[in-house]
Amino acid sequence: MEDKEPGGSVGIVEPKYFSFDKLVLESGAELSPVTICYETYGKLNESKSNAILICHAFSGDAHAAGFHRGEKKPGWWDMMIGPGKAFDTNRFFVICSNVIGGCAGSTGPSSINPATGRRYALDFPLISIGDMVAAQERLISYLGIDKLFCVAGGSMGGMQTLQWVKAFPERVRSAIPIATCARHSPQQIAFNEVGRQAVMADPNWNHGNYYEAEPPARGLAVARMIGHITYMSDKSMAEKFGRRMKEKSDGFKFAVDFEVEGYLRYRGDSFVRRFDANSYLYITKAMDLFDLAGDRPLHEVFRGKDVRMLVISYKSDWLYPSYQSQEIVRACKVAGMECSYVEIESTYGHDAFLLETERSEKLIKHFLESEYSEVAGYSLK
Amino acid sequence: MEDKEPGGSVGIVEPKYFSFDKLVLESGAELSPVTICYETYGKLNESKSNAILICHAFSGDAHAAGFHRGEKKPGWWDMMIGPGKAFDTNRFFVICSNVIGGCAGSTGPSSINPATGRRYALDFPLISIGDMVAAQERLISYLGIDKLFCVAGGSMGGMQTLQWVKAFPERVRSAIPIATCARHSPQQIAFNEVGRQAVMADPNWNHGNYYEAEPPARGLAVARMIGHITYMSDKSMAEKFGRRMKEKSDGFKFAVDFEVEGYLRYRGDSFVRRFDANSYLYITKAMDLFDLAGDRPLHEVFRGKDVRMLVISYKSDWLYPSYQSQEIVRACKVAGMECSYVEIESTYGHDAFLLETERSEKLIKHFLESEYSEVAGYSLK
Repeated sequence: MEDKEPGGSVGIVEPKYFSFDKLVLESGAELSPVTICYETYGKLNESKSNAILICHAFSGDAHAAGFHRGEKKPGWWDMMIGPGKAFDTNRFFVICSNVIGGCAGSTGPSSINPATGRRYALDFPLISIGDMVAAQERLISYLGIDKLFCVAGGSMGGMQTLQWVKAFPERVRSAIPIATCARHSPQQIAFNEVGRQAVMADPNWNHGNYYEAEPPARGLAVARMIGHITYMSDKSMAEKFGRRMKEKSDGFKFAVDFEVEGYLRYRGDSFVRRFDANSYLYITKAMDLFDLAGDRPLHEVFRGKDVRMLVISYKSDWLYPSYQSQEIVRACKVAGMECSYVEIESTYGHDAFLLETERSEKLIKHFLESEYSEVAGYSLK
Repeated sequence: MEDKEPGGSVGIVEPKYFSFDKLVLESGAELSPVTICYETYGKLNESKSNAILICHAFSGDAHAAGFHRGEKKPGWWDMMIGPGKAFDTNRFFVICSNVIGGCAGSTGPSSINPATGRRYALDFPLISIGDMVAAQERLISYLGIDKLFCVAGGSMGGMQTLQWVKAFPERVRSAIPIATCARHSPQQIAFNEVGRQAVMADPNWNHGNYYEAEPPARGLAVARMIGHITYMSDKSMAEKFGRRMKEKSDGFKFAVDFEVEGYLRYRGDSFVRRFDANSYLYITKAMDLFDLAGDRPLHEVFRGKDVRMLVISYKSDWLYPSYQSQEIVRACKVAGMECSYVEIESTYGHDAFLLETERSEKLIKHFLESEYSEVAGYSLK
C-alpha cells in the first residue's frame, strides 16, 4: 500500500509482457511470435472469478490506471479504475492490454520481423478486431482466468467488447460497450480514410519504411487533428475555445489565429511523439473492416449468449452517435439478452467516455454490484 | 436565343473581365490592379433595377449557369438560374463573379504581382469577406447598377450576402443567405485549419512557391477530402455508399476497400486539377476571420437597414447547422427587419444548397415574386 497515491489511485504500476508462439489471424496469415504488453490492478481472487478486462480505444495503451514510476500523468482511465472507483480494485482484478497492431509494447508493425531481422513495416499482416480479441483471450488463459467477470471499453474498446461477446461468450459474464458501434458507417470510415491519406501523403512515410529515418510526423499530426475534431462536439469546442484569438508569434499569414487552432496543432504534435504511423494505418483499418454481424441480422450474433450487457452512449457524440448503440440494444433485446442502456447527457462529444466519468462511474458501479448480488452462488472472495 | 439549351438553360455563356486600378483592403494593404472575372445571364432592363448578384461558395467560380462552349457540364447553380427557374433570367439580370483571392479568373495569389513580375504566392495580402464584397461593389457600379434587386448565395456565398447587407444596405433591396453563418464556430475553424495544415504539410507547397514546380497536390487532395465529409451528412453517406466494397486493384493493404473511400479520393484528385493551393489558404482564412458583428450584438448590424431577407438552412447540415441561421433570423427580427426563415428537410447535409433545389427553387421564386409585387412603384421592365 505504500506506493498508493491519495484519492483512490492504484499507485505505482508497471507494464508486464506475455509472449506466445503463434496466432493464426482471421485473414489466414500467421503472426509469430506474439507479445502482449499488459497491466493489472487489484488482486485476482482464489476462484479467479473477479477479473475485469478493459479494452482500450484506438490510440490507447495498456496503461489504464495508476502511475508509471517518475511520471505525473496517470493512466488513460484512472478516473474509472482504482479503490472505490467504478472498476473497484478493492473488489476486482482489472487487466488492460495493448492491442496487437499497436505500438505501446504489443507486437505491431514497428516490431522486429523475425523473418528479416528488421521492423515489419508494411510486411506486418492486416489484423482485425477479432485478432486483437483472440490475442487477449490467450492472455486471459495464461493468467488462469476461465471466465471474465466483465469486459468493458469505449470506442474501439467497445468493438472489442462486442467481439468478446460474439467470439467467447462462455468466457464473459457481462459486457459494457461504451460509445461504440457494431460496424462503422461510411462517415466513420471516411474520417479514418482521410487520416490514412494524410499519413501516406507525407513523403517521409515512404511506403511504411521510415524507421531508420524521419517519421511522417506532419502527415500523422494532420490525421490526429482530424481525429480530435471528431472527438469533440460543436458545443464543447465553443465552450472551450469560442473565437478567442492567440497572439501571432511571427506575423506569418497562416500562423495560428484562434486558440482552437493552437490546441489542434498541439494535440497533433504531441501525438506523433508517442504513436507509430504504421500502427495508425493498421488499427484504423481494423476498425473500418470490423463488422460484428456481417451479412446476418445483428440480433443473431447475440442469440443464445448468456452475457449481461450495459450499453452506454453520449448525447453529443456525433462520431459514434447514439443510434448505433441503440441498434446494439435493440438486437440484444430481440435476442432475449439482458441488456440495459443509458444515453448520458453530455456536451463532450465522443471524448465523453474519457471525460464524463461521474455519471458513467455510478452507472457502471451499480451494474457491477447488481450483477454480483444477482448471480447466486457466484463468489467474489 | 439560338444558343439556348432545352429545359430552361441560359445556353452558351462566356466569362467577362473587369479590371480596376486599386482596392484598399480592410487590413489597410492595397491590391493593385484588380481583375474580376464574371458572368451574366438574362438582360439588364432600362431602369437597371432587375439585377441579382449571386455569390459563390468557397470553391465556386463565376460560372454559375449555362455552358461554356464545348463543355458538357453546366455552371454550378444551373438548376437555380435560367428561364423560368428560381432566378428567372426571363425577368432578372443575374451576375456572378469569382471572388478576389480565388483562382478562377479574378486576382488571387496565383496572379502576377506587378511589383515583381512573378506570381504573388504568399506576397498576396490577406483578404477578407468584406474585401471580396467591396470588389463586387466596384463591378456593380461599373455595370451601372445603383441598387441590386437581390443578393444571394450559400455557404461562403451567404457570408458575402450578409456582408452586402451590412456594408451596402442602400444598394441591396433583398438578400438570401443560405446555409451560412454570421461567423464561424470553433468547429468550422478547426475543419478549415486542418485543411490548411494538410496543404502546408505537403513539401511541394514550399511556403507557397510551387508555381514553377509540382503543386502540393496530395496535401490539397487531403484537405478537399476533409471538406467533402463535412459537406455530406451521416445519412446521405449511408444512403449513397453504405458499406459497399470496391475491388482492390493491386492488393495493397491500404488501397481503397470501400466505395466511400474511392469517392473521396476521386473528389480530392479532381479538385487539385482546378484549384490553387494558395487560394485554398487565403479563402478559408477569410471565412474563419469573418465576423459580421464583431464585438457588437448581431442585431445592431441589421438595425435600420431597409433590406428584405429570406434565410434558408437545411436540417441535416451539420457544418453550417440551422442554429446559426436562426441566430441571423433572430437578430433581424430584433432589428425590426423583414425576414423570413425556412429550414428545409433534407438529408444532403451542407451540399443540400447545391442539390436540394426543388424546394429552395419554389421558396426563392415566391420570395422574389412577392417582393416584386409588394414594392409599389418599383418597375421591372
